Amino acid sequence: MNEKNNQNELDILRHSTAHIMAAAVVELFPETKVAIGPSIEDGFYYDFDRPTPFTPEDLEKIEKKMKEIAKGNHPFICSEKSKDEALKYFKEKGEKYKIELIQEIPDEKVTFYQSGSFTDLCRGPHVKYSSKIKHFKLLSIAGAYWRGDEKREQLQRIYGTVFPTKEELEQYLLKLEEIKKRDHRKLGKELGLFSVNEQVGPGLVLWHPKGARIRHEIESFWISQHLKNGYELINTPHIGRSNLWETSGHLEFYKDFMYAPMQIDEQDYYVKPMNCPFHIMIYKSSLYSYKDLPLRWAELGTVYRYEKSGVLHGLLRVRGFTQDDAHIICRPDQLDQEVRKVLRFCLSILNSFGFKDFKMYLANKPKEKAVGEEKDWKDATKALEEAIKSEGLECAIDEGGGAFYGPKIDIKIKDALKREWQCSTIQFDFNIPERFNMTYVDKSGKKARPYMIHRALMGSLERFFGVLVEHYAGAFPLWLAPVQVQIMNITEKQEDYCREVLQKLIESGIRAEFDSRNEKIGLKIREATLRKEPYMAVVGDKEKESGTVSVRTRKGNDLGQHKIGDFIKLIKEETKKDLTIK
Amino acid sequence: MNEKNNQNELDILRHSTAHIMAAAVVELFPETKVAIGPSIEDGFYYDFDRPTPFTPEDLEKIEKKMKEIAKGNHPFICSEKSKDEALKYFKEKGEKYKIELIQEIPDEKVTFYQSGSFTDLCRGPHVKYSSKIKHFKLLSIAGAYWRGDEKREQLQRIYGTVFPTKEELEQYLLKLEEIKKRDHRKLGKELGLFSVNEQVGPGLVLWHPKGARIRHEIESFWISQHLKNGYELINTPHIGRSNLWETSGHLEFYKDFMYAPMQIDEQDYYVKPMNCPFHIMIYKSSLYSYKDLPLRWAELGTVYRYEKSGVLHGLLRVRGFTQDDAHIICRPDQLDQEVRKVLRFCLSILNSFGFKDFKMYLANKPKEKAVGEEKDWKDATKALEEAIKSEGLECAIDEGGGAFYGPKIDIKIKDALKREWQCSTIQFDFNIPERFNMTYVDKSGKKARPYMIHRALMGSLERFFGVLVEHYAGAFPLWLAPVQVQIMNITEKQEDYCREVLQKLIESGIRAEFDSRNEKIGLKIREATLRKEPYMAVVGDKEKESGTVSVRTRKGNDLGQHKIGDFIKLIKEETKKDLTIK
Repeated sequence: MNEKNNQNELDILRHSTAHIMAAAVVELFPETKVAIGPSIEDGFYYDFDRPTPFTPEDLEKIEKKMKEIAKGNHPFICSEKSKDEALKYFKEKGEKYKIELIQEIPDEKVTFYQSGSFTDLCRGPHVKYSSKIKHFKLLSIAGAYWRGDEKREQLQRIYGTVFPTKEELEQYLLKLEEIKKRDHRKLGKELGLFSVNEQVGPGLVLWHPKGARIRHEIESFWISQHLKNGYELINTPHIGRSNLWETSGHLEFYKDFMYAPMQIDEQDYYVKPMNCPFHIMIYKSSLYSYKDLPLRWAELGTVYRYEKSGVLHGLLRVRGFTQDDAHIICRPDQLDQEVRKVLRFCLSILNSFGFKDFKMYLANKPKEKAVGEEKDWKDATKALEEAIKSEGLECAIDEGGGAFYGPKIDIKIKDALKREWQCSTIQFDFNIPERFNMTYVDKSGKKARPYMIHRALMGSLERFFGVLVEHYAGAFPLWLAPVQVQIMNITEKQEDYCREVLQKLIESGIRAEFDSRNEKIGLKIREATLRKEPYMAVVGDKEKESGTVSVRTRKGNDLGQHKIGDFIKLIKEETKKDLTIK
Repeated sequence: MNEKNNQNELDILRHSTAHIMAAAVVELFPETKVAIGPSIEDGFYYDFDRPTPFTPEDLEKIEKKMKEIAKGNHPFICSEKSKDEALKYFKEKGEKYKIELIQEIPDEKVTFYQSGSFTDLCRGPHVKYSSKIKHFKLLSIAGAYWRGDEKREQLQRIYGTVFPTKEELEQYLLKLEEIKKRDHRKLGKELGLFSVNEQVGPGLVLWHPKGARIRHEIESFWISQHLKNGYELINTPHIGRSNLWETSGHLEFYKDFMYAPMQIDEQDYYVKPMNCPFHIMIYKSSLYSYKDLPLRWAELGTVYRYEKSGVLHGLLRVRGFTQDDAHIICRPDQLDQEVRKVLRFCLSILNSFGFKDFKMYLANKPKEKAVGEEKDWKDATKALEEAIKSEGLECAIDEGGGAFYGPKIDIKIKDALKREWQCSTIQFDFNIPERFNMTYVDKSGKKARPYMIHRALMGSLERFFGVLVEHYAGAFPLWLAPVQVQIMNITEKQEDYCREVLQKLIESGIRAEFDSRNEKIGLKIREATLRKEPYMAVVGDKEKESGTVSVRTRKGNDLGQHKIGDFIKLIKEETKKDLTIK
């Protein structure tokens, strides 16, 4: 309760600060029309209609003016007006957005809040006096459509934040700074990892050499782990005939997220939003006995889903992404063991990528419409619960939060900034086996329906990679770093020797490059550090003569001279450690 | 010339045999209407219209009847008739297909050939006497549309072959038998490698676990070799906006092979038929200096192209396939070296898959329309020629056979049955760098246009895999075999021990399975041999007690008892040999 009260107070403070911001804007730029200004998570905003775009300098001016107004210690005064009075008031001021808002209010009367010379249509509540508003900061300007409707007026939204104490504000701004530094879009460009561009299409990712190198390491690791853990690989097309999606129910329930069909030989084909129907077609092409189960079929399957362009965000929200998908098809008596196995496997994979802090959510049967037998829901939900318990983990129950076709576990990982990211999901499906009439022959020779589990551990490779970039701030662990060692010569005299070293490292399977530019060694070290390359092998005459390299780390540690063979051993051992200590 | 004469004689023999077949069919099944019956590569066919389908037993009867007719030693007699006479003749017999053919002949007169009681509209020539026709065989029945038009009557086509000597016929039938045994569609099903089905869509391949395992080995090998040979990986989407294909020229010249567009946010998107435009968008997102070149960017990129359903054939002709694509972007002075490198690399890759016999085709500038400077064509063609020479290889010149955008080398590989398959291609492109305005900054600081080479070594993974299946008749070399070792117990008593062995093999990275069924060991060995699994590890009490396995090969060789460690070493060494002796 207490936390909630605090949250309410913070919301009030934030909303009041939005009023003060609007007051400052109208005073400084009287041609501006005001729209709405709510409190939001972490702050507030206000939408303005003004022909000239606000500049960063304007923000400073507005902030200064806000300080002045706040210091004036104006009370926030509430008054009630009839709708006619209110309309008249705003008509005189030419505030068309307020007029539209009032016209939609069903009540006879509306409330106004006044503070100093600024009066706004507002439900309140507010802080008592403007002097309460001290520790605030305007953060950014963005475009926004009036009422979120892209056919209406485009407005300018100014974001800001405010806190009760100076310390809280400073802490928050520091975190913002850190988040900005780690932004995967910024690092993606700087480190040559990926790009997204209008010409190819929003939400479609181009993986550049450095990024694709990391992706390859992720994929190789993922595949080898899956093979070791009893999975088999399969591989399926990216397009398929409409009847697949009719049978699966996607065309009925999921059409908004699917792309338009293409006609081929008078048949509709769709780009796949999911891999499941293809996996099931493989299943259905053979007969299975109870002895053949469980089957665990894994595919790094690239799917395409429609997301509104407004919600696309770097790698975190895209239109084309590769699911690290697998389907487990098993008998009822294999349920518990399979669920436990997959959860343990999931956690070990996440661990290997450096994530150790998780939040588990168990979503059970929805109150309204759900398919599947009551017993199946019960058994499956219990299996999920037991698996979480057996790992000694806590989990939140998302009451009724399961999909209509089965219960699931969602796992959120916490990154270095304690932000939560939903990646892994383990999900039962009582719908698809029924719809596709999947069967196996049980011990008594009768046809039986298998259980089916969908699971994705990273979720989407694109999104997971985005999270990794932010988690590591681009300084990838050695096993993932696209360049593990940057070799650099001090003068031209060591060039041939450096090429020999390069060749040896590459032959040993180490990802190495050689910076042979005619530049000062200090600059080469600085740039490799900025590129966050784990190791630098510096070569001068001394090293050339002794058949060594001088080793430095990206953190600036000087590890001294190493014989080439020893250096290779060092890198190999450190790479191995990355993947084994967790 | 001589060969051509022989070919003509063979054609005449084949065409005459087609007549004899028609004679036999009409005699045996008088309700049959005859259509056309040409000689073709390797034999002949005749199309018949008959309400009842021909059965394999009918084929035997027809063959017997043909023998009778041929022995009659009827001369082939040519006669000329006016079109009216000819029409009257066939109208009386109700031969509507012949009537349609005659009506389309512009000449006043037509020729008939008669042999025994059978007379056909025919240009000839024929053998003199039917007794020349001795060594023939009817092979198969297939559906065919009259005049190849799917809106016209469906006919029954009977295929056959004939040779001048018994030996030639027998040799040919033996080869047919061998081709049938190796058919990748048949083996694909038997070995659980892949499937294609109507519900997913014709030409779209589902890779089943065993096939996908081989694919994974192929891909891993391909990637590791590319990384060792100075390539970088990239990764691009399967759909892209129409402007990409407008700029590239695909929408202008290649539209028939592209699928219909999908609208997304009022923009047209296409499923990609080629990877190039995406690679170029990555190139264009950065600036390059002459020092940054050459770039070698590789992607296992899955593309989708429209092929008529009639030409689709297993894995050899599909609609969705993964190109082992790469683009080399280089300076003019790097041309020779890059071309030489890529050709050598290509041959080494093909070697690793067991192909040692190649045929090279150099296609140079087309006589009519071609883009690019004369000097570029000359230099590029010379570079290709020199590269082939430097490998000590012969090549056929395909005069004027280059694409309009640049010269190329096509490499055909010969398989175990000496059949040629076109897989690899190394191709210059003077068009795309121009259309996309690709540039780099040269030594003098000016913008220059780079050379661009497209190359695919396997061509398409699907097709290459199909060729591999037929080349090896499904008995894949150890490094590719989806199951390298099948462990099998003689009685239940060795089950636990076998599981231990299995675990050890898997941990050593060996692809092993354990056949624990309660079946006789002979059956287990027979079935593993049929599945063409390279090694079998047989375990009885003797082996269990001594900590060994008895090793057999799929060829039936008994390699005796081996300690587990030694057996693992053996497999590892043999796998390595596979990839190094070539």
